[in-house]
Amino acid sequence: MQALASRLPGEDLLYLGDTARVPYGARSGDTVRRYSHRVAGHLWRRGIKALVVACNTATTWALPSLAAAGAELGVPVLGVIEPGVDRALAVSQRGHVAVIGTEGTVRGGAYTRALLARHPGLRVDAVACPLFVALAEEGWHEGDIAERVAERYLAPLRAGADTLILGCTHYPLLAGAIQSALPDVALVDSAHSTAEATARMLGDHALLRSAGGGQQRFLVTDHVERFHVVGERFLGGPLGEVELVDIRDDDGEAFGLPGSAHR
Amino acid sequence: MQALASRLPGEDLLYLGDTARVPYGARSGDTVRRYSHRVAGHLWRRGIKALVVACNTATTWALPSLAAAGAELGVPVLGVIEPGVDRALAVSQRGHVAVIGTEGTVRGGAYTRALLARHPGLRVDAVACPLFVALAEEGWHEGDIAERVAERYLAPLRAGADTLILGCTHYPLLAGAIQSALPDVALVDSAHSTAEATARMLGDHALLRSAGGGQQRFLVTDHVERFHVVGERFLGGPLGEVELVDIRDDDGEAFGLPGSAHR
Repeated sequence: MQALASRLPGEDLLYLGDTARVPYGARSGDTVRRYSHRVAGHLWRRGIKALVVACNTATTWALPSLAAAGAELGVPVLGVIEPGVDRALAVSQRGHVAVIGTEGTVRGGAYTRALLARHPGLRVDAVACPLFVALAEEGWHEGDIAERVAERYLAPLRAGADTLILGCTHYPLLAGAIQSALPDVALVDSAHSTAEATARMLGDHALLRSAGGGQQRFLVTDHVERFHVVGERFLGGPLGEVELVDIRDDDGEAFGLPGSAHR
Repeated sequence: MQALASRLPGEDLLYLGDTARVPYGARSGDTVRRYSHRVAGHLWRRGIKALVVACNTATTWALPSLAAAGAELGVPVLGVIEPGVDRALAVSQRGHVAVIGTEGTVRGGAYTRALLARHPGLRVDAVACPLFVALAEEGWHEGDIAERVAERYLAPLRAGADTLILGCTHYPLLAGAIQSALPDVALVDSAHSTAEATARMLGDHALLRSAGGGQQRFLVTDHVERFHVVGERFLGGPLGEVELVDIRDDDGEAFGLPGSAHR
């Protein structure tokens, strides 16, 4: 959100956090896909002109079906994995890239597939670090405990990869602890490359609004008060108004989820 | 589940884990209540004769409305808070009780209210320990990291309470680390007192089946494979068959959620 607002100051940005159902990281692919299509359907009905799937787990499981549904509706859809892969390939010196993410992101293998498709000779490691999300949400992203958790998860990557993709939007908050555990590794955060790719995508579809004055709005599906606390930790400042939206599993329009008409 | 099976060997036990929507600990009271009534409705339609709300967060927010709905249907309903309070009052030597639980359990204040209703002169402290659930699910409930997390959360309780209620069903797994942080405190786990109270409740309603041969079945709303891994860590042995059930927000019968007919 920060990177998009800074790269695209003329665009109105609508953020939707599915706080009634997160974390997605340990859920099955089918459930992540179902939740992602409900969220996308809500945003689509609000008239968005483009969709950024700003979650690695949702990108892993739902990007192909969301992109197909978006194409039918004329709404371009972008995930965070391809931009992260672009950046990692530009940064890597020795062709050995590691990815850290949720259980679902690692199990789904989308990063590994995308890296190898672009560069078949690459060495790729992937490690799930589920506690990092809980640490970031708790505000314990710095200090002794965060460093010990990072050391334990990242020990298998020592003396290996030269580049590490932070494959979860919570992980940049833990960059200090991660870098302490792997001091010689270049960290890749996909936020800025995703913002660049979004600008390119809007340009390609003649949707770019280059004058300033864009607005930011935040929607959540549960517990506005807690979102203020956690969201302000991520954005480093007040969020402004946060609106509670009611997205149920029975929302009429599933925004292109295959088979959803029959469920 | 273990305590119920051991105390009530003649009863068929049906466990439902809402793995598509857990953890409930950081959600709003309204959302926990909505999810709890959907789960209860599913179990009710399967013909259960009694319901144990074996989650402290769900007991905190949903027990009164679930009990009212159960009374209309002739299904007695029991939570885990009253049995934990009974046990803590029996154990406490100096009348100073602390409760640890999720954000929601602590914010809801049901333990504090129940303790003070029974014993108005009691001193009660309550501390939320959200990371404990993530540690238990990750299998990191013992060792250095668990001990440091416990020390950090529990430092405010040192030199205070004589009795500590483990107010979340995940926390008994961390009993070692918790006891290290508070060596002189008596730990109270509500599992056994809940099983006792369940036996009493079934007896009072002439529903008790005292012969052996009870069966255990596990239902989950998402990701059967992961439930086997995590569930076997809790039960200390294989779970047998685990069935995936599809509980949507659009389930017709809300099992007595106030106002649900209009939503």
